[in-house]
Amino acid sequence: MAVRVAVNGYGTIGKRVADAVARQPDLKLVGVAKTRPSFEAATAVRKGYPLFIAGDAGTKAFEAAGIPTAGSLDDLLGQCDVVIDCAPEKVGKENAKLYDRRSSLKAIFQGGEKAEIAERSFSALANYGECRGLRRVRVVSCNTTGLARAAAILRSRWGVARWDATIIRRAADPAESQRGPINGILPSFHIPSHHGPDVRTIYPDLHLRTTAVVVPTTLMHVHVNQVELARAPRDVEELREAFRGTRRFRLFHAWEGVAGTPQVMEYARDLGIGPRPDMMENVLWDEGFHLDGREIAFFQAIHQESIVVPENIDAVRAMFDLAPDAERSMAITDRTLGLRP
Amino acid sequence: MAVRVAVNGYGTIGKRVADAVARQPDLKLVGVAKTRPSFEAATAVRKGYPLFIAGDAGTKAFEAAGIPTAGSLDDLLGQCDVVIDCAPEKVGKENAKLYDRRSSLKAIFQGGEKAEIAERSFSALANYGECRGLRRVRVVSCNTTGLARAAAILRSRWGVARWDATIIRRAADPAESQRGPINGILPSFHIPSHHGPDVRTIYPDLHLRTTAVVVPTTLMHVHVNQVELARAPRDVEELREAFRGTRRFRLFHAWEGVAGTPQVMEYARDLGIGPRPDMMENVLWDEGFHLDGREIAFFQAIHQESIVVPENIDAVRAMFDLAPDAERSMAITDRTLGLRP
Amino acid sequence: MAVRVAVNGYGTIGKRVADAVARQPDLKLVGVAKTRPSFEAATAVRKGYPLFIAGDAGTKAFEAAGIPTAGSLDDLLGQCDVVIDCAPEKVGKENAKLYDRRSSLKAIFQGGEKAEIAERSFSALANYGECRGLRRVRVVSCNTTGLARAAAILRSRWGVARWDATIIRRAADPAESQRGPINGILPSFHIPSHHGPDVRTIYPDLHLRTTAVVVPTTLMHVHVNQVELARAPRDVEELREAFRGTRRFRLFHAWEGVAGTPQVMEYARDLGIGPRPDMMENVLWDEGFHLDGREIAFFQAIHQESIVVPENIDAVRAMFDLAPDAERSMAITDRTLGLRP
Amino acid sequence: MAVRVAVNGYGTIGKRVADAVARQPDLKLVGVAKTRPSFEAATAVRKGYPLFIAGDAGTKAFEAAGIPTAGSLDDLLGQCDVVIDCAPEKVGKENAKLYDRRSSLKAIFQGGEKAEIAERSFSALANYGECRGLRRVRVVSCNTTGLARAAAILRSRWGVARWDATIIRRAADPAESQRGPINGILPSFHIPSHHGPDVRTIYPDLHLRTTAVVVPTTLMHVHVNQVELARAPRDVEELREAFRGTRRFRLFHAWEGVAGTPQVMEYARDLGIGPRPDMMENVLWDEGFHLDGREIAFFQAIHQESIVVPENIDAVRAMFDLAPDAERSMAITDRTLGLRP
Repeated sequence: MAVRVAVNGYGTIGKRVADAVARQPDLKLVGVAKTRPSFEAATAVRKGYPLFIAGDAGTKAFEAAGIPTAGSLDDLLGQCDVVIDCAPEKVGKENAKLYDRRSSLKAIFQGGEKAEIAERSFSALANYGECRGLRRVRVVSCNTTGLARAAAILRSRWGVARWDATIIRRAADPAESQRGPINGILPSFHIPSHHGPDVRTIYPDLHLRTTAVVVPTTLMHVHVNQVELARAPRDVEELREAFRGTRRFRLFHAWEGVAGTPQVMEYARDLGIGPRPDMMENVLWDEGFHLDGREIAFFQAIHQESIVVPENIDAVRAMFDLAPDAERSMAITDRTLGLRP
Repeated sequence: MAVRVAVNGYGTIGKRVADAVARQPDLKLVGVAKTRPSFEAATAVRKGYPLFIAGDAGTKAFEAAGIPTAGSLDDLLGQCDVVIDCAPEKVGKENAKLYDRRSSLKAIFQGGEKAEIAERSFSALANYGECRGLRRVRVVSCNTTGLARAAAILRSRWGVARWDATIIRRAADPAESQRGPINGILPSFHIPSHHGPDVRTIYPDLHLRTTAVVVPTTLMHVHVNQVELARAPRDVEELREAFRGTRRFRLFHAWEGVAGTPQVMEYARDLGIGPRPDMMENVLWDEGFHLDGREIAFFQAIHQESIVVPENIDAVRAMFDLAPDAERSMAITDRTLGLRP
Repeated sequence: MAVRVAVNGYGTIGKRVADAVARQPDLKLVGVAKTRPSFEAATAVRKGYPLFIAGDAGTKAFEAAGIPTAGSLDDLLGQCDVVIDCAPEKVGKENAKLYDRRSSLKAIFQGGEKAEIAERSFSALANYGECRGLRRVRVVSCNTTGLARAAAILRSRWGVARWDATIIRRAADPAESQRGPINGILPSFHIPSHHGPDVRTIYPDLHLRTTAVVVPTTLMHVHVNQVELARAPRDVEELREAFRGTRRFRLFHAWEGVAGTPQVMEYARDLGIGPRPDMMENVLWDEGFHLDGREIAFFQAIHQESIVVPENIDAVRAMFDLAPDAERSMAITDRTLGLRP
Repeated sequence: MAVRVAVNGYGTIGKRVADAVARQPDLKLVGVAKTRPSFEAATAVRKGYPLFIAGDAGTKAFEAAGIPTAGSLDDLLGQCDVVIDCAPEKVGKENAKLYDRRSSLKAIFQGGEKAEIAERSFSALANYGECRGLRRVRVVSCNTTGLARAAAILRSRWGVARWDATIIRRAADPAESQRGPINGILPSFHIPSHHGPDVRTIYPDLHLRTTAVVVPTTLMHVHVNQVELARAPRDVEELREAFRGTRRFRLFHAWEGVAGTPQVMEYARDLGIGPRPDMMENVLWDEGFHLDGREIAFFQAIHQESIVVPENIDAVRAMFDLAPDAERSMAITDRTLGLRP
């Protein structure tokens, strides 16, 4: 019988997670919760997702907009086995109190919440097995997910002696039209940035230091990685092959003409096989590697809107023991979301 | 029997036209022609579109990239009833010489070519009937299509005495990462801009003057329209209803939260029902109308990448008399492309 | 004896007004008031401007930063004949209560406040004479100033029958790094926009309708003007000459290579003759005019940060009757600020 | 007697170098050479700089624009002791042939040329002494200058064991309105980027690796530096003091409110003491340092338009032995250009 899933919060992440849940053979989307009417609420209804009202805005605003609703968040929580919390940063902490009132309800939180909110922070490639049967799991944030995935490869193949990453962050999501800067670069004065410690919630012994700047783009983050490995790869092609041969990574060849993040997202639009024109894989470039003994450098681009979506699905499978290991969970997730086999 | 269609040029417009042709019950996509390998060529092949090589680059570059091809542009032209030319601006003029060598081949050109290249310039709402059976048709450009559609409504309902439009142009398409400006506004010193005369290739007597500026965005154009109608609408709601009730227009309500072009394209991504996250309809806003006697003002946003796509499909139908009138052609086009019924 | 001037509010406008006041032979800058320490406060002190503390933040924050202050806003108000209020929009209304407590204190407000705050709205070319001796004057906002200046020419030379202006607004000032959009165009759903009515606080009978959109740039606004004049100009050169021959207008020739607002501001940087690299004049282009009988079209660019600065100076002169007419006030202002003679 | 200096090329760098030369007590600007008329040519004339015509465009274009010229580039070269070549990248190589024809003419090239064009690459803090009396000197590019300055401090105080720098590059200068991207991040697939090797033209043994990405901004570059020093600084304040106490560095305090490059350039505009609103110093932030034993991280912002300007002046002094050492040359340069004492 399918695990019944609710999605609380229907913004950038929540709407994508809902689309992904709806495509899984072993999960059932019982509903999504939203605080206010918007075109996204109307789209949810058109897609057939039962829509519940979170917060106190009441049904009037939805009624005025002609959007049918199915009840309150509390109603929704009563009908599901697990809630995936996709509320804005820090709101998940408040929501956790609601979830705790129902003893049989499991919950997944996003990376905007502190690690302490859950029993374990999750990244499918890294620690699927450790999260089996847990009741509270936190899927790490977009940049952390991207780094943890890359760490899974580097650690297992060659070991990581030291890793410096510069994170060039998008300043806003495409539809966040109130946020800037329009022209300028803003250093993040929290050095090292929170991403390194956040990856260590998954790999506690990883020697990773991260520094971040914010730039005026909406499409993707880019990571510039300088890594000293424990053992030297044979050649740069061995490096490429390791990434190319692992789920959740996509490498572009030079002839494909993908000069940067604009072309990556154009590629996603061209593919047309997922629920949305997203790029849920870490993006790397054949040309974007450098090898010098044990020291390597590589770029990766991270689609902040979608990279955590397959991770949320895999987290549900781990928590309900729906697949025997990460590979078999990821295989289902990737096939249903149209990711590269 | 399905009309056999070739698409020559597989860039922003060509790839969308190919996707659209492939979805039509009465058309058959026999192939697309491209000059160089790229991720888009690979995507075409994955979608099952026979790929032909345009130009002299030869098969070597495609072979090196491992992309199978089906022959030359000339081979493709020999297998189709009509070619839709989607080559870059001005290249269509050269291509026309190739097409002219085949007496039974019909051809459609895009708005980047001069009107003289074809027997008639085309806009489905405006002059479908006049293009029936023609051999050379030109689908007008994105801004012209948007204006011609709006003209079709205003002319037929109230008449147009005088129309001033300011066209705020996107500086580059999303994947054109080499074009600027990054920060600034560039007036177009061709006053009036070419758009007004171009609309008059369809409505010769329309008193429309257009002026254009270029701004640093990639998503959509916006038109600011100031129109003096021949007769006064009853009220602003009558205006809205006229647009709302016509194919190829989409009006957003205030509660939908669509503040501008970023949210329009987000809406397109959310819909997820067409071949791509496009917006082939003129976009207007309930709040974006003003009425003062016979004078009206309204905004419309135009998705430069896709608005001409359904027009190309309808143009084929007109040229091969596949539908008795515009409405019946548009009904098929819109249903297959997932546009609003 | 010089009129003693205080500037309350030391942001984008206030710091420029202070620099301008300090350059006038007949005015004395007795001080500026600011709420918080910042590099701008430190720069004010380095320039020798006595710095007073506005608001309740107290002296501690300034002391911690090592910035010497000269007292409170109230102290400053006690030492001046006129205060130029450059506080953020709507704060001027609160400040007015403070000013009203001192019977001999005159005050100038900016265009972010409602017209009712003052006895008269001011634009030097338009109504200098009407503001002589007044106690409360409001300098209209940047776009309104730009339109009022152009109106002064068009009305006096040919008369204005009807004027439609589309205002393409910069989304943020250069140093406002928190504001967007980064990529997109946002229509302003207040149609007509407030600019038209605001110009009518100066020219009550002007038939001007304005519509606005916001675009992702920080440099300047651009106005697209479509005007029906009462009488036809002889030719387009007569039009150009009228603007070229009037103070506070700058026309660029085609050979100068000024393609748009980026080059205008580059020009301002190159000039290096004012207190800052500003462009206090309306900017027009020789190529940016079109004439068709009585109907004209023209572009103008408006530097939102500085265009009102000379107007504030002239307003003081009018209020204290320091110059017999607009021309003689403007001549002093323009010479001291390095504007074109 | 003043050394007679010509500036060949009057673009972003050339016009700034000319302004700087004109302010030196021991140099005389005999003229600038430009290929085409533009507002910048007119400004040069207004500033009193004799204008010579480079290239074959002839005098007609200048005459048509009403811009007086003083002769050809060859004429200019005959009147000077040294030419500072500020032509576009790679053009300097062609120009070098002209310069070589005059045996007594010295020449300075910019960093867009290869190191081989000159006897020595130059950075004032690093190797002033080594360039005394030379005939051909190359001032390294903006990013290289910024890195070399920082290297001068780190090497002399603590030694550098290993240095990784990520260079976040501005995509275009403010007035280059044709260059993109408008929205996106473009990795530079030349890894390591050329900046590291370029710094080694000055410090051959420096273990510096650089990686670069291009982002949509026009204001400044930002460097993210991760450095392992040879010896540990006492504390982070010792680090700050070293930079704060060295010419050509400017550190911002937290209270100044300088969140990133938009506020840095606003600060430059506010200063108003140089020939232009430039920032010729490396910009660092008190908050932008991190210290962990021998490992440090710090941000620096580099104003690509102006940072090499004082270096060009110092290079002339070295080549003509006008000052006994770097400090005394820099003291004059900095005082005349309004840099921090």
